Amino acid sequence: MSTDIFSYAIGIGTQNSAGRWLEVFYPQPVFRPAAGEVERFAESAGYSGGNVAIELSPAQLSALAEQLPDTQAALANTVCQSSSPVVLTIIANDEAITSTPEAYLKLHLLSLRHVRPNEMNLEGIFAQLPNVAWTSRGAMDPEEVTAAQLQARMAGEVLEITAIDKFPRMTNYVIPGGVRIAHSARVRLGAYLGEGTTVMHEGFINFNAGTDGPNMVEGRLSQGVVMGAGSDLGGGASTMGTLSGGGQIVLSVGRDCLIGANGGTGIPLGDRCTIEAGLYITASTLVQVFDADRNFVRQVKARELAGQSDMLFIRNSSTGHVECRTNKNAITLNEELHAHN
Amino acid sequence: MSTDIFSYAIGIGTQNSAGRWLEVFYPQPVFRPAAGEVERFAESAGYSGGNVAIELSPAQLSALAEQLPDTQAALANTVCQSSSPVVLTIIANDEAITSTPEAYLKLHLLSLRHVRPNEMNLEGIFAQLPNVAWTSRGAMDPEEVTAAQLQARMAGEVLEITAIDKFPRMTNYVIPGGVRIAHSARVRLGAYLGEGTTVMHEGFINFNAGTDGPNMVEGRLSQGVVMGAGSDLGGGASTMGTLSGGGQIVLSVGRDCLIGANGGTGIPLGDRCTIEAGLYITASTLVQVFDADRNFVRQVKARELAGQSDMLFIRNSSTGHVECRTNKNAITLNEELHAHN
Amino acid sequence: MSTDIFSYAIGIGTQNSAGRWLEVFYPQPVFRPAAGEVERFAESAGYSGGNVAIELSPAQLSALAEQLPDTQAALANTVCQSSSPVVLTIIANDEAITSTPEAYLKLHLLSLRHVRPNEMNLEGIFAQLPNVAWTSRGAMDPEEVTAAQLQARMAGEVLEITAIDKFPRMTNYVIPGGVRIAHSARVRLGAYLGEGTTVMHEGFINFNAGTDGPNMVEGRLSQGVVMGAGSDLGGGASTMGTLSGGGQIVLSVGRDCLIGANGGTGIPLGDRCTIEAGLYITASTLVQVFDADRNFVRQVKARELAGQSDMLFIRNSSTGHVECRTNKNAITLNEELHAHN
Repeated sequence: MSTDIFSYAIGIGTQNSAGRWLEVFYPQPVFRPAAGEVERFAESAGYSGGNVAIELSPAQLSALAEQLPDTQAALANTVCQSSSPVVLTIIANDEAITSTPEAYLKLHLLSLRHVRPNEMNLEGIFAQLPNVAWTSRGAMDPEEVTAAQLQARMAGEVLEITAIDKFPRMTNYVIPGGVRIAHSARVRLGAYLGEGTTVMHEGFINFNAGTDGPNMVEGRLSQGVVMGAGSDLGGGASTMGTLSGGGQIVLSVGRDCLIGANGGTGIPLGDRCTIEAGLYITASTLVQVFDADRNFVRQVKARELAGQSDMLFIRNSSTGHVECRTNKNAITLNEELHAHN
Repeated sequence: MSTDIFSYAIGIGTQNSAGRWLEVFYPQPVFRPAAGEVERFAESAGYSGGNVAIELSPAQLSALAEQLPDTQAALANTVCQSSSPVVLTIIANDEAITSTPEAYLKLHLLSLRHVRPNEMNLEGIFAQLPNVAWTSRGAMDPEEVTAAQLQARMAGEVLEITAIDKFPRMTNYVIPGGVRIAHSARVRLGAYLGEGTTVMHEGFINFNAGTDGPNMVEGRLSQGVVMGAGSDLGGGASTMGTLSGGGQIVLSVGRDCLIGANGGTGIPLGDRCTIEAGLYITASTLVQVFDADRNFVRQVKARELAGQSDMLFIRNSSTGHVECRTNKNAITLNEELHAHN
Repeated sequence: MSTDIFSYAIGIGTQNSAGRWLEVFYPQPVFRPAAGEVERFAESAGYSGGNVAIELSPAQLSALAEQLPDTQAALANTVCQSSSPVVLTIIANDEAITSTPEAYLKLHLLSLRHVRPNEMNLEGIFAQLPNVAWTSRGAMDPEEVTAAQLQARMAGEVLEITAIDKFPRMTNYVIPGGVRIAHSARVRLGAYLGEGTTVMHEGFINFNAGTDGPNMVEGRLSQGVVMGAGSDLGGGASTMGTLSGGGQIVLSVGRDCLIGANGGTGIPLGDRCTIEAGLYITASTLVQVFDADRNFVRQVKARELAGQSDMLFIRNSSTGHVECRTNKNAITLNEELHAHN
């Protein structure tokens, strides 16, 4: 057994009528436990190594509690009274995801700020996350909803379905400290919100995406995109994703940037960059670069400016040209991309 | 009595304190029933033809169940124990809507994929749909909410009002197979979601609009707009509607199209069309058309390109011109529109 | 004691476990009470002047009810049976906000249409509004949620967290007459919705912002922005705010304007103005002005056109220029701004 465990956690979850996991809530995941911590309870839990999800009976939980550190023992003793199924998930190695409980644990680790976006192996996550009907009575199998809907009506009640999706709302699982989220449906479990992040009503943060904080997010952070401290994403602004319709480059936005309302970017930005409201920079946008003295330098495709700092992008409204004005004498082009222009 | 009935359904609904219907849930509507099916139960139901909504007592329901096909009989026997009012709605002919139960049945038929958008008579729907406060305790008359709100507070509870609107969320009535809806508040009852449709958080589908599936919807499908298989509507992308501020043309989007993030269209698109991120094509946008060899063909208003296939729209960022590049030698103009240019 | 009281109201609210107010619901605020009205109940309430929030016991409420006008007395007699804390908030003068109950009362006054946006002193509101976890069981301190979440799970229930924010949804407090709100999470308490306002799914109205009505709101009204009768804000359209990333000018939109889908404005607009879909006018956009005969008049920065009427903004798609076409022979420039051009 490896003595260098990635994470373990006790969770309480929901299964459909066939006993398949729909979701798991982990109140206190342990990230990179101390050496020997898992070995101590391995036998009680029937754990012999690898990445596994072990469903535990109340009796097993009580026995396990004896071998656990204090806070985990308290949790085990609490959930052993649960009528919902309880699971012990152990991720020995950060490898491709092989079960629903593993997928949920990794999403928790992101939202709890244990791991930053793009630093964990999320391969297989879509396959391991079942599609779930998220209802006012908890997670349900979508195929079991209509019957429940009628039963609720018969009782004079309403079964509210808030989503049919693989990912739940983050706030029903994790509430990171020092954040504001104006509408929780817009932040998926697995989002990483740094302290001091405000997500307004029009903001959106996907799983494996987020902010260093402090940040104002009024636009959409696609999967994989991280925004540095002090940056603002304006109302309805877009960061181009890689999952659907976007390109291959995973974007990032540096510190102290401003992407104006209804604007967007298809290239990574360094620090102190601004895109004016309403302007969308795609990787293939032709950009006229001007230096600090407002002299024209050259025309390039935006992808050659990827990752540069101190850029101000505007569309010159008397010529229609997209311009990049910088406060530096010259801007360094992305040489690799430029070579293949 | 016509023997060619459009639809009938048993529903369970909500009325305000004056006995006016607020909404109706139909678990299993029957579309185009077999010849003679309605005649068999007409007498028990007191049905003598036309489009009607008949409120039924438990006794009437039990009697009716004897004359109904099996699945409908089972439903009748279930809802006869309901404390909420039960209705039998029969739409003999697809004519203008004359009651709230009829309006709800037609919306169900769309979301259940019995009828595609723009293929049913929805005249009168706004007049027949009352404005409803959608709450955590079900549908309420907006004028009766404040008192209920105080009562809930007195009991230490909260009455959550999710909307004040004529249309409810689709998922509280119908969950079509094979779809994902990241946030159910963004899909109205009456939306038509083909199998394999994913509606992301920023996606929106109005009633009488939808997708053939599979599709990725991260933008807004206005009333009347249908999108073909394989097409993507990017984040925040807009399809111009006809109800408010838009034009007169009901839009459609063909197969394998991509409307980029924050882009939009005010003209119908054929197959394999692309609009780059951030570009909005209105009907009167002047477009420079280029052929497969990148030769300039002519300048036209976008409405003359309505419905064409294989078009790529970009705004040339070094000239500001909106261009349509095609992979065909020439693009067929909409002759009727062109004649009136 | 002043005899010219700004407002008073009896509220029922929520406190965290340390007794700090999280929020207050006022079913029937009194705006500008009749002379002498407050003096009559001042002694019973222990009120000796100023802006105060007085927590009242059931016994105090019963005594107070004797001195109150009829509708307020009825309310006092009702809430004296409440297990939730009850407060009497008196705002003698419209000064900077000094408590949470005061902040909530002022937000109610806006949404109840007693006071229009920008006509009340809201200084200090952010400091006096605590960050709250808005849940299916009411307002909670964000730091007390995780424990409650586990308890709910143990009981086989779900604690739904809809927001972590300083401002709640308006509709859980106030439902103004004659409005439709397709998704209540998009309208904050403190929004001002004139009669005949429809807020669609993509619409958003911040506190201290709103509409005169009738209006169609499918875009975002930032804090401080008011839109006149007959104007439409298209899907995803933006009005530039002053709180984050925007400028210093508080915007307004006059009567009978149309801001097209995905468009936006960074300048105030007079009456009968149109911005085409997809065009964002910022204060520094260079605009070519044309008169009623389509003659070029001059090029100005958009801020010089602030507040003018009868302007049509488009981006000329064959030149890339942003143009302002007017139906008047000449357009009056903002002389003050022009002088400092």
